[in-house]
Amino acid sequence: MSDIPTRLQPIFEQIDKNTEANIAKLATAISFKAVSGDESLRPELFKKADYIQSLLEKLNCTDIQQFDLGEEKPGLSLPPVILARLGTSPTKKTVVVYAHMDVQPASKEDGWDTEPFELFHDKENGLLIGRGSTDDTGPLLAWLNMLEAHQQLGLELPVNLIFCFESMEESGSIGLDKFIEDEAKTSGYFFKYASKIDSVAISDNYWLGTTTPALTYGLRGCNYYQIKVDGPKADLHSGVFGGCIAEPMIDLVQLLSTLVNSKGEILIPGVNEMVAPVTDAEREIYKSITYSVEEFNESSNSNTCLFDNKEDILMHRWRMPSLSVHGIENAFSGQGAKTVIPATCSGKFSIRTVPHIDSDKLDALVIDHVNKQFAKLNSPNKMVCELVHNGAYWYSDPHNSSFTAASKATELVWGQKPDLTREGGSIPITLTFEQQLKSSVVLIPCGKGNDGAHSINEKIDLENYVKGAKLLGSFLYYFSETD
Amino acid sequence: MSDIPTRLQPIFEQIDKNTEANIAKLATAISFKAVSGDESLRPELFKKADYIQSLLEKLNCTDIQQFDLGEEKPGLSLPPVILARLGTSPTKKTVVVYAHMDVQPASKEDGWDTEPFELFHDKENGLLIGRGSTDDTGPLLAWLNMLEAHQQLGLELPVNLIFCFESMEESGSIGLDKFIEDEAKTSGYFFKYASKIDSVAISDNYWLGTTTPALTYGLRGCNYYQIKVDGPKADLHSGVFGGCIAEPMIDLVQLLSTLVNSKGEILIPGVNEMVAPVTDAEREIYKSITYSVEEFNESSNSNTCLFDNKEDILMHRWRMPSLSVHGIENAFSGQGAKTVIPATCSGKFSIRTVPHIDSDKLDALVIDHVNKQFAKLNSPNKMVCELVHNGAYWYSDPHNSSFTAASKATELVWGQKPDLTREGGSIPITLTFEQQLKSSVVLIPCGKGNDGAHSINEKIDLENYVKGAKLLGSFLYYFSETD
Repeated sequence: MSDIPTRLQPIFEQIDKNTEANIAKLATAISFKAVSGDESLRPELFKKADYIQSLLEKLNCTDIQQFDLGEEKPGLSLPPVILARLGTSPTKKTVVVYAHMDVQPASKEDGWDTEPFELFHDKENGLLIGRGSTDDTGPLLAWLNMLEAHQQLGLELPVNLIFCFESMEESGSIGLDKFIEDEAKTSGYFFKYASKIDSVAISDNYWLGTTTPALTYGLRGCNYYQIKVDGPKADLHSGVFGGCIAEPMIDLVQLLSTLVNSKGEILIPGVNEMVAPVTDAEREIYKSITYSVEEFNESSNSNTCLFDNKEDILMHRWRMPSLSVHGIENAFSGQGAKTVIPATCSGKFSIRTVPHIDSDKLDALVIDHVNKQFAKLNSPNKMVCELVHNGAYWYSDPHNSSFTAASKATELVWGQKPDLTREGGSIPITLTFEQQLKSSVVLIPCGKGNDGAHSINEKIDLENYVKGAKLLGSFLYYFSETD
Repeated sequence: MSDIPTRLQPIFEQIDKNTEANIAKLATAISFKAVSGDESLRPELFKKADYIQSLLEKLNCTDIQQFDLGEEKPGLSLPPVILARLGTSPTKKTVVVYAHMDVQPASKEDGWDTEPFELFHDKENGLLIGRGSTDDTGPLLAWLNMLEAHQQLGLELPVNLIFCFESMEESGSIGLDKFIEDEAKTSGYFFKYASKIDSVAISDNYWLGTTTPALTYGLRGCNYYQIKVDGPKADLHSGVFGGCIAEPMIDLVQLLSTLVNSKGEILIPGVNEMVAPVTDAEREIYKSITYSVEEFNESSNSNTCLFDNKEDILMHRWRMPSLSVHGIENAFSGQGAKTVIPATCSGKFSIRTVPHIDSDKLDALVIDHVNKQFAKLNSPNKMVCELVHNGAYWYSDPHNSSFTAASKATELVWGQKPDLTREGGSIPITLTFEQQLKSSVVLIPCGKGNDGAHSINEKIDLENYVKGAKLLGSFLYYFSETD
C-alpha cells in the first residue's frame, strides 16, 4: 500500500497542471441555468446534461445513456438521468459515483455580488464563485478532472466506475428512487458487468467547518406531517362570526403548541424514548471534532443557538431528533391586516429522525398525540393529522472499507485526519443506493462548511476544487487495495 | 302625525309603478365592474360614479361634486367621493345619506350561477341577483327611486338631504375619514347651508335573518395586532439547523396559544373585565329577537357554532369581545412539504371590541401579556407585539329620534316592529360621521340576512328593493316630525 502515493504523484501533478483548464470547464458547466425548481428553465437542464455527456464521451466512458424519467406533470418532461461506465474488468471492484447536475435558484437580485451563472474567480481569496460551484457541479467535475488526468497520462483506473448523474436533486429527486430500483434488477444497468457494487461514493455535502476535512457516516431522516383543521365551508368575516364560531386556526395553534417547546424539546410522549442512548465512546468522538458555538452562529448569521457548547450543538444536529414547525397553509399569509376567519388551515411540521426511531411507530405516536390533544379541545371542527412523506435516517459504520479508504485519501491529500461527521439533513438517495445496490455508501465531501450551497454567493475554494480531484482519485486507489 | 300614511300613499303607489324601470336602473348600475380591490378595474369606478352623478342630476340635486381623494399609491388614483344636495331650506332638518358605489370582487368562476355583473331577475323566487344588488348599489338606488317618485308627483321632501357616496368601502374606505373631517369644518360642504346635521342614515348592512326587518344600533370595534418573532437572518434548512436553533415559528405558536382557547374565551388578563355587564333588560331584548342556532349554522354553512342557543350566539356576536387568529406572514404557506425554518414570522390576530373596552388600555393589556409570555419562553429570538390598526366600537341609543322614526317607518312598510340589532363587524365610517358631524347615526338596512353580500350569487329580494325605497322615504317623513 505504501507505493500508492508514488502511483498518485504524477496524477496529482497532472491535475495541478490542468487547473486553468478545469476552472474553464467549471465556468462552462455552471453557465447553464439548470434550476430544477423553475419550470421555465427546464430546457437548460437538458442542455447541461448534453454538455456533461460530451465530457464523459471525451473520457472514453462507455454505455453512456440519458434515461427519460417521464413527466413531472402533464406537459413538463423530467430532465434525464445520465448513466455511464468506465471499465468493465471482472477483477476490479466497482464503484458507483453519484452527483447531480441541477442547482438551486439564483439571481443577482437575491443579493449576489456577481452574476450567479457566470463563474467569478476571486483570485485574492482563492474562490470560484457561482451557482453550482460547490453544489454539486464542482464536485461532479472533480471526478471528471481526476479521470482526465489519468487519460492524459495513459493510466488505467484501479476500479470500474459507474456514473449516476441526476438533474432533480434540488427538487426532491423526482423519479430517481424508482429508476434506481428498476436498474438495480438483474436485467438492469448496474449489474450488467458486475455481480456486485462494492461502494457508492457521493460528494454532495460539506465539511463541518472550514479547516478540517470530513467524512460523513450518518444522515437524519425526516417524517413530514400535516394537521388539517376544517371548520365552516368558506372563509368567514371575523366581525360577523368571531366569538360564535369554532375557529380552525385557534384549534390549530393550540395543537401545534403541544408538539415542541421553545427549547426545542419534543413534547410528544414516547418519541425521545426511542433515541439511541449516547455512549461514552460517542462523546469522545464529538469532543475531537473541530467546531464551536461561534461557527454555528456564523452559519445561522445570528445568536439564536439553543446551546452553549459544540457537543450539544452537534449532537442535536446529528444524532438527536428535532421538530420544526414550517408554516400554515390556507390561513391568511399576506401582508397587511385581513380580518378573515380561515375556513380551513393546515399546519406543517416535520420530525428529523435518528437511530433507533422506528418510522411507523413515530407516525403512530404523533397522530395519537395530536388526536388526544384535539379531543381535549372539545371542538366541533374536524381534524386530521397525517404523514405527508417520510425518508429514513441513514447510519453507516465509519470504519468499513469505504470509509477507511476515504480516510487515508483525506490524510494524503489534506495532511490531516477527517472529522467523522453526520448531517442533520437528509439525502434520501443515500439509503436507496445502500438498499437497492446492496452496497456501502460513503459521503466524501469536497467543499467547506461556508460554501453557501443554497445561499447567495455560492463558492468552492479553488484549493478544494483541485484537491477534490486528488481526493476522489486517491480514494479509488486506496479502496482498490482493500479486501 | 297620523296623516303621514296619507301623504305617503301616492308615493308608495308611484314607487310600485316604477318597479320595472327601477329594476332596469339597477341592471345598469351593477353592470359596472366597480371592484375597488382590483386595480385593473379602477376605471370602472370612475364610470360608475359618472352614472350615479347623472341620476343625481336628473333628480335636480344641486352642488353635485366629485371629490378627488388623491392617489392610493403612485400612479393609481383613488376613485371619487360624490357629494350632492337636495334642498337647502333653513326650516327643515338635514339628513346625510351615506352609501357606497364600489363592490366586492366577483367572477363566474367563483361559483356564481349567473354572470355577476349582469342583473338576473329570478322571477320565480322574486330575486334580483348580481354583484352590488344588496351591497350597496341596490340600497343606494332605493334612495334615488324614492326621490324620483317625489319628483314625478311634484312633491317636496320633508327634509334637506346631503348625499355622500364613496367608492372605496370594500377596500377600507381609504381617504374618506380625512375627507369627512375636512368637509365637516366650517368652510366645508356639510355645514354650508345648515348649522347642524340632524341625522346620518346608512343602509349598508342587513337584517339579522330573513323574516324580520331590523334597525342596527351598535357595531363592534376592531383592534388588529401583530406578533413578530425574528430569529436567524435568513430562512434555514430544518435538517441542518433543526434542534439547535431557536425557531421563531415555535415561539410564535406558543405565544398565539396563550391568547384564546378553543371555546373562544379570551385568555389575556383584564380584557373580559372591561366588558359592560349584561343587564336583565338587555337579556329581554335578546329573547325577543327572531333568530336560531339553525339560522347561524346556515349562515356559516357548518355545524361549528360554539353555543346552543340564540341569546349566547347573538351576545357573542354583538356585545362580547372576540379574538380571532387570522394567519401568519412569512412562514411557509404554500402547498406541499417544504422543510424550511422561517427566519421570521408574524402572527396576525384581532380583538373585536365592545363597550366599555378602552382601546388604549386593551393595547397595553395585550402587549404586556404577550411580552410576559415571551419572557417565560426564555428564547434568544426577538419579539415585538404591536397594534396594526384599530377602529372603535359604535353604540347608539336605539330610542333616539332617528331610531324612533326609522322604527315607525319599518312598521308602516313591513307591518312589523324591527329587531333592534347590533353587528359583530365594524363600519368605521359610522363613528366618523357621528363624531365629525356631531349627529346621531341610524343604520337602516334594506336587505335580508341571506343576501350573500360578500359571497357568490349576491341578491336582493325584489320586495326589499321596492319596499326599501318606501322605507327610506317614510323614515324621512317620520323624522321630519320629531322634535
